[in-house]
Amino acid sequence: MAALIALPLIGQGRINIPDLPGLVTLKADFHMHTVFSDGTVWPTVRIDEAVREGLDVISITDHLEFRPYVQSIETLSGIPLSGLSHNIAYEIAKPYANERGIILIRGSEITRAMPPGHFNAIFLTDCDALANKDDYMDAMRAARAQNAFIFWNHPSWTSQQPDTTLWFPEHTMLLQQGFLHGIEVANGSMYCPESHRWCLEKNLTMIGTSDAHAPVAPFAAGRHRTMTLVFARSRTEEAIHEALRERRTAVLFENHIIGDERNLKALFESAVEISVTKTNETTAQITLRNKSDLTFHLRRAGHDPRLTYFRNNTIVPYTIRPQSVQAITVRLNEGIRGGDVNFIVENFLVEPEKGMRYTVRIE
Amino acid sequence: MAALIALPLIGQGRINIPDLPGLVTLKADFHMHTVFSDGTVWPTVRIDEAVREGLDVISITDHLEFRPYVQSIETLSGIPLSGLSHNIAYEIAKPYANERGIILIRGSEITRAMPPGHFNAIFLTDCDALANKDDYMDAMRAARAQNAFIFWNHPSWTSQQPDTTLWFPEHTMLLQQGFLHGIEVANGSMYCPESHRWCLEKNLTMIGTSDAHAPVAPFAAGRHRTMTLVFARSRTEEAIHEALRERRTAVLFENHIIGDERNLKALFESAVEISVTKTNETTAQITLRNKSDLTFHLRRAGHDPRLTYFRNNTIVPYTIRPQSVQAITVRLNEGIRGGDVNFIVENFLVEPEKGMRYTVRIE
Amino acid sequence: MAALIALPLIGQGRINIPDLPGLVTLKADFHMHTVFSDGTVWPTVRIDEAVREGLDVISITDHLEFRPYVQSIETLSGIPLSGLSHNIAYEIAKPYANERGIILIRGSEITRAMPPGHFNAIFLTDCDALANKDDYMDAMRAARAQNAFIFWNHPSWTSQQPDTTLWFPEHTMLLQQGFLHGIEVANGSMYCPESHRWCLEKNLTMIGTSDAHAPVAPFAAGRHRTMTLVFARSRTEEAIHEALRERRTAVLFENHIIGDERNLKALFESAVEISVTKTNETTAQITLRNKSDLTFHLRRAGHDPRLTYFRNNTIVPYTIRPQSVQAITVRLNEGIRGGDVNFIVENFLVEPEKGMRYTVRIE
Amino acid sequence: MAALIALPLIGQGRINIPDLPGLVTLKADFHMHTVFSDGTVWPTVRIDEAVREGLDVISITDHLEFRPYVQSIETLSGIPLSGLSHNIAYEIAKPYANERGIILIRGSEITRAMPPGHFNAIFLTDCDALANKDDYMDAMRAARAQNAFIFWNHPSWTSQQPDTTLWFPEHTMLLQQGFLHGIEVANGSMYCPESHRWCLEKNLTMIGTSDAHAPVAPFAAGRHRTMTLVFARSRTEEAIHEALRERRTAVLFENHIIGDERNLKALFESAVEISVTKTNETTAQITLRNKSDLTFHLRRAGHDPRLTYFRNNTIVPYTIRPQSVQAITVRLNEGIRGGDVNFIVENFLVEPEKGMRYTVRIE
Repeated sequence: MAALIALPLIGQGRINIPDLPGLVTLKADFHMHTVFSDGTVWPTVRIDEAVREGLDVISITDHLEFRPYVQSIETLSGIPLSGLSHNIAYEIAKPYANERGIILIRGSEITRAMPPGHFNAIFLTDCDALANKDDYMDAMRAARAQNAFIFWNHPSWTSQQPDTTLWFPEHTMLLQQGFLHGIEVANGSMYCPESHRWCLEKNLTMIGTSDAHAPVAPFAAGRHRTMTLVFARSRTEEAIHEALRERRTAVLFENHIIGDERNLKALFESAVEISVTKTNETTAQITLRNKSDLTFHLRRAGHDPRLTYFRNNTIVPYTIRPQSVQAITVRLNEGIRGGDVNFIVENFLVEPEKGMRYTVRIE
Repeated sequence: MAALIALPLIGQGRINIPDLPGLVTLKADFHMHTVFSDGTVWPTVRIDEAVREGLDVISITDHLEFRPYVQSIETLSGIPLSGLSHNIAYEIAKPYANERGIILIRGSEITRAMPPGHFNAIFLTDCDALANKDDYMDAMRAARAQNAFIFWNHPSWTSQQPDTTLWFPEHTMLLQQGFLHGIEVANGSMYCPESHRWCLEKNLTMIGTSDAHAPVAPFAAGRHRTMTLVFARSRTEEAIHEALRERRTAVLFENHIIGDERNLKALFESAVEISVTKTNETTAQITLRNKSDLTFHLRRAGHDPRLTYFRNNTIVPYTIRPQSVQAITVRLNEGIRGGDVNFIVENFLVEPEKGMRYTVRIE
Repeated sequence: MAALIALPLIGQGRINIPDLPGLVTLKADFHMHTVFSDGTVWPTVRIDEAVREGLDVISITDHLEFRPYVQSIETLSGIPLSGLSHNIAYEIAKPYANERGIILIRGSEITRAMPPGHFNAIFLTDCDALANKDDYMDAMRAARAQNAFIFWNHPSWTSQQPDTTLWFPEHTMLLQQGFLHGIEVANGSMYCPESHRWCLEKNLTMIGTSDAHAPVAPFAAGRHRTMTLVFARSRTEEAIHEALRERRTAVLFENHIIGDERNLKALFESAVEISVTKTNETTAQITLRNKSDLTFHLRRAGHDPRLTYFRNNTIVPYTIRPQSVQAITVRLNEGIRGGDVNFIVENFLVEPEKGMRYTVRIE
Repeated sequence: MAALIALPLIGQGRINIPDLPGLVTLKADFHMHTVFSDGTVWPTVRIDEAVREGLDVISITDHLEFRPYVQSIETLSGIPLSGLSHNIAYEIAKPYANERGIILIRGSEITRAMPPGHFNAIFLTDCDALANKDDYMDAMRAARAQNAFIFWNHPSWTSQQPDTTLWFPEHTMLLQQGFLHGIEVANGSMYCPESHRWCLEKNLTMIGTSDAHAPVAPFAAGRHRTMTLVFARSRTEEAIHEALRERRTAVLFENHIIGDERNLKALFESAVEISVTKTNETTAQITLRNKSDLTFHLRRAGHDPRLTYFRNNTIVPYTIRPQSVQAITVRLNEGIRGGDVNFIVENFLVEPEKGMRYTVRIE
């Protein structure tokens, strides 16, 4: 009943990621568990962790069909608990979240064998309406009746897809009938390139989540949990829902940003201020001012050979560090006056294994 | 239902503290909470944390009289839970602890206003026998009937003793009637010098605990939770109980060891191998080989002025670092052949504000 | 002829220490060596290190009488080098310092056996005028003829004062004749309480220096070299000289500030913004806003017992962390309306082993 | 003349890399500078740095043609120093190295415009014999007359090859006439894939160096300078020379090992103990016991599709951490009894951009 353990950490805290023009960039994690399914923490802990990491919005998404800890209390005590509402984690955490400025979104995980696997339904109004359904489509329909945003969780989870990551006919059906709005492109320490590809092809929203079950320990400097960046019109639940529907997201995973070209280009241009100056007849200088806590790894892309600039190094990429200014010297050979300086931002993935191409024009 | 968050920590892990002759040194934490009182974690988390920090033995000591989270479930669900057994955290965690080699001791916190305040009863066989007692002495008697080891928690907790740390007549009565066997000398980030003094005067066992309510985050290199070192005949529950009864403990708190002279001297001599060599007629060298992960801060104490050795620095003490060898050069002036090299180990507290005195004899 | 070694450090950089009213706080190190005496680096390295640590002013003070590396070149090459000017390190480093905004002050170390020991003379115009003097007083006179500021180095250096730190008649003579203006209170990892006492008694300036011989490695977060804080009217060499003459300095040594009460009180009040509010009839709140990177360790001092506030802990002091806001709750008992809240800032040493006393009045 | 600055570093120290069968693995850095060319430290500093990092062997390779600091002393003092021997750094450092167990090899850097660029000649007996040659071939001949090992430094240095990394006719000539024995594949923070390719094609020795000019700061945990691993018959200068002639080297650069397949395979097999057990009819387990401080990044390579094992992740590779044991579960589908488990060790580069292929056979 006394003191907390002091936490001797280095550099932990919020990561600075810029807003896009007319939009705010919100840090979101839409997948995590508590003691009311198979997570090991009380719901308020998820709010404390979000505050510590500087998240804006989370959803607690306990399994509807798998509540081993509630079951364990029931078994040991003989007190019947199967009727315990699936809204309880939300109800416990909501006032605590409000006091701390965290947007908490009501959600549940619909948990089935593959196909179709696991799905999170968020922006629910009543989780219980989805529970106790033999047919997963009944749970889906109950979610959609509440106007839920539904995404497929960890398609490449080896417990369900040990060897390959397949898209099943069930997923086609869910998509066609409007029950599928997004896919987890990254879940915890897993990146799923198939999810990335499917989102691009099928116009689905890219989601990144922690899927935390244990307590989330503080991160060392420069590290962060896997999360979704939501580019919303405002910091409200409604605006977040709208942004997810409009696919204005990107995924932060390790030191990578994963998404589509439209969102990644906007994020890059908001994070890095670029200016070009001619230092003399044969030299120009491109100044990159990185106003964010993101790191950018550049690689020179195909270009007019009369322009020369930084050399590619296959092991150590050309790096723009957080909150730094860096100058690229470009030489204009053979009398040319300008040209396109092309490079790839290798850790901004616009497709699986494909970094974002960017051009700075020298005139 | 998927991956844990990777934990990017520096130097975290077990702290090496030597065994005493004929005894093993066990790392113990006898005070912590779970969702079954006012802690925020499922009981198994306390085992995981113990494994990570290299503890040997813990006790989960949920409050008998204060179960806000159980209450919260009851209130929100309408399911009556007041009858939930106080043994439940132990029953959930015990098999998990056994699999991982952690000794889990059944305990409860008897939680009253001051006087007499809060007490932990450990080595219980049935926590429920202590519950629902209007008179705290009925709880005490139920604990003693189970041969519990009982200690007073955080006497200097400002919520109960805001200005002074008093010993009340109730404590005299408990002591005289055999209901009080130890006191917390340190609880979380609080050290209580009064507790230290009382243990010495009244022959009580010194206890150090985390009193963890939130998840215990991994520690940075060289840091640790407040804990009790138990010098036991073997690594068994019975031997731990016997060691506590025999006051064979010391408290690890920040970089200090707190205890009585007998235990601290034995620990120092087990940790540091000392040898003396005469390098010539007027010089001797004392070699200190620190085989432990403890740090020792030395200060020169009163001595024959014809011996000269390291100079005291009131800001930066003379330091023996973990796992290191250090040599102290001693000069023998005015023709003497030897003498007593006296020093204080400042961070080995044998009384409040009094470090342990130690002598190395040069012959 | 190619790339520097990348430096993978955590948190290294400038320490923020506030200006005093009407004065700027400059970070100074007036004692260090290069290859032109017994240091192991080229003079420009001292400038690079100063830039990295955020120093404002340094003095390279190579020994006039001890140039082992120059000697070594002479011996190995046969080229006579004894005539090499003692101004050379300054001349090499000065343009480099100017380009980087570091104030470099010309200085030399007068290097004799004890008594009187070693002295630094700074603000010289020609180091050579002090060299090749058999009588140290001739060197002193040459320094004073250049209006040098002269301070005694490391009086407690065990190579010269192995057992005790004595003030010799020679020092009395130097002081009386105006050849002694300051003393090193801290040198590298040595704090000398005798120096501290002498400066107070004899109105001498307190100096802290690194006395670096080897390269100064980057510091980990929150660490720094031993340095002098100079409270100067402006960031110029003249103003620094004037501040030293007027004893407007303090010494930063480990986590301590060492000085006299006048300077330390001004520094504390510039670093910490204090406000008092009455929260109700029986409670006041003192808010301490630490705008600096300094840490303050407080201990409650003697006070009216009807006021109660934070409790002293003999192991872990009450701590105001860098760049933080902390509130002290004060209770007003027995109907009093206010009173003096007295505390000691333990790591602000106004005398050896004596922290600075401070009072916040509640009205 | 007093204390060194204490160095508060985390985890710094020696990196553990295993010996190969019948050979010792020596850590070497054959390229660095001192004040006797354009480095900023006294020669003994290079020995202290080598001790701290656990190197076995270094060569100080000051430029023969570029001694700006010696020149600076000459200019400022008027003392003629152009005749200063090029052996002086070696002569100063050699006794100091011997006392500390570092093998110091006499060397020089032959410093010319491109082509042919810069070359280090090591295992010299007299550096002066190479100096003051107008024609670089005269310097080369003087080096070979001393049986020097000669390698080309930083071919991709942008000051000499700004746009491309070319092999000039001069290099063909040097190679054919026996003046070229190795190439720097990595220099400081530069990796040169062209050098890597040329070494493979032309049977040249791969070299990695720091090319340190400034003081080498201590490294954070897990980091190290760019170095050459030399697989020698013994820890002697002669055996090192023989190993270089026989191309028994690899380059440690960031977290990569760069070399040829023969050396890298031997290193991998010495570092990682591999065992295979059949857990049942359809499952085998490959246990990898990494006894080194190296990290290995694995990627699954083409294989019989009836075998399934870890899944490739294009962002986060499958990682074997230092000093750890890891198990790979392999499933044997469709009734097969065994097969070849193929993977690429991505950070063991046997060619530019090509990791080392390795097969574990299950029978």
